[in-house]
Amino acid sequence: MIKIGIVGGTGYTGVELLRLLASHSNARVDVITSRSEAGMCVADMYPNLRGHYSYLFFSEPEVTKLAACDVVFFATPHGVAHALANELLEAGTRVIDLSADFRLQNADEWASWYGQPHGAPELLGEAVYGLPEVAREKIKTARLVAVPGCYPTAVQLGLIPLFERGLVETQGIIADCKSGVSGAGRGANVGSLFCEAGESMKAYAVGKHRHHPEITQGLTAAAGQAVGLTFVPHLIPMIRGIHATLYVRLTSENQKLTDAELQQVFEERYKNEPCVDMMPWNSCPETRSVRGANVCRIGLHRPQGSDLLIVLAVIDNLVKGASGQAVQNMNIMFGQDELEGLRFAGLMP
Amino acid sequence: MIKIGIVGGTGYTGVELLRLLASHSNARVDVITSRSEAGMCVADMYPNLRGHYSYLFFSEPEVTKLAACDVVFFATPHGVAHALANELLEAGTRVIDLSADFRLQNADEWASWYGQPHGAPELLGEAVYGLPEVAREKIKTARLVAVPGCYPTAVQLGLIPLFERGLVETQGIIADCKSGVSGAGRGANVGSLFCEAGESMKAYAVGKHRHHPEITQGLTAAAGQAVGLTFVPHLIPMIRGIHATLYVRLTSENQKLTDAELQQVFEERYKNEPCVDMMPWNSCPETRSVRGANVCRIGLHRPQGSDLLIVLAVIDNLVKGASGQAVQNMNIMFGQDELEGLRFAGLMP
Amino acid sequence: MIKIGIVGGTGYTGVELLRLLASHSNARVDVITSRSEAGMCVADMYPNLRGHYSYLFFSEPEVTKLAACDVVFFATPHGVAHALANELLEAGTRVIDLSADFRLQNADEWASWYGQPHGAPELLGEAVYGLPEVAREKIKTARLVAVPGCYPTAVQLGLIPLFERGLVETQGIIADCKSGVSGAGRGANVGSLFCEAGESMKAYAVGKHRHHPEITQGLTAAAGQAVGLTFVPHLIPMIRGIHATLYVRLTSENQKLTDAELQQVFEERYKNEPCVDMMPWNSCPETRSVRGANVCRIGLHRPQGSDLLIVLAVIDNLVKGASGQAVQNMNIMFGQDELEGLRFAGLMP
Amino acid sequence: MIKIGIVGGTGYTGVELLRLLASHSNARVDVITSRSEAGMCVADMYPNLRGHYSYLFFSEPEVTKLAACDVVFFATPHGVAHALANELLEAGTRVIDLSADFRLQNADEWASWYGQPHGAPELLGEAVYGLPEVAREKIKTARLVAVPGCYPTAVQLGLIPLFERGLVETQGIIADCKSGVSGAGRGANVGSLFCEAGESMKAYAVGKHRHHPEITQGLTAAAGQAVGLTFVPHLIPMIRGIHATLYVRLTSENQKLTDAELQQVFEERYKNEPCVDMMPWNSCPETRSVRGANVCRIGLHRPQGSDLLIVLAVIDNLVKGASGQAVQNMNIMFGQDELEGLRFAGLMP
Repeated sequence: MIKIGIVGGTGYTGVELLRLLASHSNARVDVITSRSEAGMCVADMYPNLRGHYSYLFFSEPEVTKLAACDVVFFATPHGVAHALANELLEAGTRVIDLSADFRLQNADEWASWYGQPHGAPELLGEAVYGLPEVAREKIKTARLVAVPGCYPTAVQLGLIPLFERGLVETQGIIADCKSGVSGAGRGANVGSLFCEAGESMKAYAVGKHRHHPEITQGLTAAAGQAVGLTFVPHLIPMIRGIHATLYVRLTSENQKLTDAELQQVFEERYKNEPCVDMMPWNSCPETRSVRGANVCRIGLHRPQGSDLLIVLAVIDNLVKGASGQAVQNMNIMFGQDELEGLRFAGLMP
Repeated sequence: MIKIGIVGGTGYTGVELLRLLASHSNARVDVITSRSEAGMCVADMYPNLRGHYSYLFFSEPEVTKLAACDVVFFATPHGVAHALANELLEAGTRVIDLSADFRLQNADEWASWYGQPHGAPELLGEAVYGLPEVAREKIKTARLVAVPGCYPTAVQLGLIPLFERGLVETQGIIADCKSGVSGAGRGANVGSLFCEAGESMKAYAVGKHRHHPEITQGLTAAAGQAVGLTFVPHLIPMIRGIHATLYVRLTSENQKLTDAELQQVFEERYKNEPCVDMMPWNSCPETRSVRGANVCRIGLHRPQGSDLLIVLAVIDNLVKGASGQAVQNMNIMFGQDELEGLRFAGLMP
Repeated sequence: MIKIGIVGGTGYTGVELLRLLASHSNARVDVITSRSEAGMCVADMYPNLRGHYSYLFFSEPEVTKLAACDVVFFATPHGVAHALANELLEAGTRVIDLSADFRLQNADEWASWYGQPHGAPELLGEAVYGLPEVAREKIKTARLVAVPGCYPTAVQLGLIPLFERGLVETQGIIADCKSGVSGAGRGANVGSLFCEAGESMKAYAVGKHRHHPEITQGLTAAAGQAVGLTFVPHLIPMIRGIHATLYVRLTSENQKLTDAELQQVFEERYKNEPCVDMMPWNSCPETRSVRGANVCRIGLHRPQGSDLLIVLAVIDNLVKGASGQAVQNMNIMFGQDELEGLRFAGLMP
Repeated sequence: MIKIGIVGGTGYTGVELLRLLASHSNARVDVITSRSEAGMCVADMYPNLRGHYSYLFFSEPEVTKLAACDVVFFATPHGVAHALANELLEAGTRVIDLSADFRLQNADEWASWYGQPHGAPELLGEAVYGLPEVAREKIKTARLVAVPGCYPTAVQLGLIPLFERGLVETQGIIADCKSGVSGAGRGANVGSLFCEAGESMKAYAVGKHRHHPEITQGLTAAAGQAVGLTFVPHLIPMIRGIHATLYVRLTSENQKLTDAELQQVFEERYKNEPCVDMMPWNSCPETRSVRGANVCRIGLHRPQGSDLLIVLAVIDNLVKGASGQAVQNMNIMFGQDELEGLRFAGLMP
């Protein structure tokens, strides 16, 4: 039985971790910390968990209690994992960080995007970027895993098969992405109010979103050369879901590829991936088809047989885009069945 | 391994059955019928099921194939189970009917509310009304179970502890109920369009809803005498969820009961019920706390200590109000753990 | 041209006042105050107003500027109008208060519900409760008008025809009310987040809502005797709209009234009311039919011809339930056409 | 007083025409036809119109009655205006067609996209494409106006300032567009159900949408040369609103243009346009800011000063994208103030 600690469990990724782990046959949450809610039963904050965690109360963060766990998840704002990770690792506890603290490999780049110095640059060398479809082997033995962001998960899974094989131009990539409101977290911000975000949509942070360097880093690694990307996120009036609409151009020597061959590239790449679902050519995946599920569903389009390939990729931002992927990483790290706790079929309608 | 057939699996209760049964460790759907979609893989209609039912295709309804199953679920409009149930029962196949065909014990009453003659009155004698909290023992050996309607489940679970003990007046009961739009099914009706039902609400079928006699029948049985009920359903702009706000008056001899004693009546009644969750006194259950979960969550209120008791009961109309309750019945009928396939914690947010 | 000041214009009732007054041919907003947003153009906060108020900037609240207006609207939390009203009235400026400060005629009752002493009890004598359908004559000459709350508007308009004529029991009234989320205002509260209030519903403040004494006061005045009411508000996942489902019992001597006679009571009562729309008997008004409109739409039901009469009343909580009713009051006070600025037909779909 | 007829008034563009025309001081709807609803008062179908059109009933379509009007709007599926327009024009009645019948100037192209022969190719010569920002002079004297589609309105208004001045590449244009569900009309299709379109999003008709040739036609005219466009529409869970995210590349000689100069191009182009609102550089317009309003609101972005310009354009698909634009055309055709009936400020929240 894997002993689990969660730091900062009051937000949406925290409750989603609890929901998923409730159905994990070989893991148990022993500690969950929250400074503001210490003493409260988790089910009092999240009544969907009533009957599942009657023993579990939020507690003040204490390193010694956390260090007694096999693994600690950080479901915190950035900066917190920087401060605590090292101490836990030294105590032999593995760390799965859902925040952005260890996603960028370059501490200076991190500092420039997050507006503060990197708090633990000495750990960057061993931090593994936890996209299982790319780094499964490294994850197995990792002590410190950085769970990818929601947008980066969808965009990278949608594009790496093409970049790994050098099929598309590395410049001029467009990622027009749409996210449900839960991506903004449970913070009490006016912009996330029902009456502000409902019955409306908008772009935001155009050219300035912090997931931009994370996406670029991943695609650059896949391509083996620098990529140039325009990333425009949009806020959509739904609770869960990310829809990435990705526009890439086939290189001139690859424009002769048939639709079937392009489809085959993806199917081959993901044939052994339990959490990526290639739909048939010309499919339009719906975000609700992955609601609650740890799946990235992908469809390919090439209008009028031009050199422009359109990749549509959907995930649940709280599952494959956060907590589900975190559990998937844990399963890999601890030699579990990779899908344990993650077999939920998606809630539709 | 229980062999399952589903008749009419293209609607919302059908896909919900499939979702729930996908996580059942001791049951397998062998046959699913749909005249209109025969030949289509179920996952092509419901992409959330991709990866879970690759072997399963809609087929033309054929009694011989269905009769080879251990149990057949009817997820059909009313009238279909009337026509087919007997043949299946004679073949030794048990039947769990999610439609209204066998919910009313009086064939004439059924005929008057549904506008057509009852098609199988000879089966009414053995049909068991499948509310496990009331009829668990009968369900164990039942050959034919009528799964309660969504409103009737919420209203009965909210009120039977009071009526069974004669604590409240049997006349003047008010059930002001609110339902998400999925209660109207997947039929292409103008009233269920996103642009008609969204951002709005209304009452409907005031005093004329077909669940009225079903509720009355159940409460009358609990009370041991005729009850008089006003039932006003409302359509709410959400996909899933029923919220019943129930107003009953304590009889004069019971007005001295304290709040704690009233709470105790419910906790006692449901202490061994795995699918009913009594919240603390004065709680206001949210429908989302049971989204996807086979739970009825209940809160009690008594403003100003008057003789009026207010019971708030929420369910997911597609789960405890339909498909989940159907699976719960199956588990009871076949000696399974009653919660097998039904442990999902509720998707929140 | 009526010169208007608005105190506290950053909330939803503030922007709604601006929207409505933009189409008023004989009024002009000269001053709008907000401490937090002083210096900002109103259209920068509310882009829907771009092109309508390019001249108007939020300013620090200054009594001298406000006192130069013919009328000042308070769109503020409770307590603010208490502090400022007297000074404005002495300067000859009339006051229309959208907050709760002057709705209750009894200062002690106000203090007990709002948890602080009443700040201006000396003004209660002249404050007019601004429900035009009840107090039009008094409003004409009023210096200080208290605009009714949203729930109280819907409930009173739905019930006063019955109480004024003594047709129903004054005890045991049930008001099961449902409100869109904008009723909670634009404050950044977790409970009003899209991901908390969306796709869910719940009751709240059962027996404890501050609109309870306001409703009781109005109904008591209509009945000429004390009334006993149970009021249960619910939060519905829509932006605008209130739906009141009202249950009252005909007195024994009035149970012989026919449905047509009851309908006639309402039609007679409201035949000259431009902002109340009686629908035909057995109608179920939808909240969207009044979205953006200054109308209360009412339908009557009497299931099975019993003694229980059900009144359904819908309003837009921000219009007839707040800012529209405030403008209606202004029109009456200043001798304008009562519908000026209020002819909008409702946005549907 | 302009005498108006409406053919096919039961859909969303029909009710929206009625809503807008209700506030028009110099126009009156005399005839509205619907085969299926003949005899019904329009307010019985659309209760938001109660009190505004008590005199108006749906009638069987009769050319003689329609021909007695000054202008007839077609709010019909494609093909209907083809069949009736000529007869009306010959009778001296002007025609404003909200359908796609006269939008494409090439009858063969129309036939290939709509799968049937063009029914009135002889009228194409005089049909004016009713985008006032492009064709105001022609509209003044037009007998037959084709109201642009919703997506084409947003995309063209977002891009024509650039193409008219040759600032951007004419190939490789990407229009990633998002639409609320009302764009699909009031037809009872499963895909438009609340439970299908709610809490989810998807792309659809990738590379195959009928608005594609209409957009291309308009941009080609603006550019003076053929343009190459990729158009990907998405369905968003909101009732009203279109958000176009447009990606174009500055030609090499224009990459030196500063952000301010690009902003100036748009402001100059639209300075006299009452229904286009240029927001400040780097603005992200929200669809709700134009809800119910006849405005296209535009924001410009150029991330990292690259050659890629991003134009964000929002409209209400039922107003500036359909019925509002139709009324704007009527006003121009009949010498009215162009904004008459169209001054509504947008419903927000």
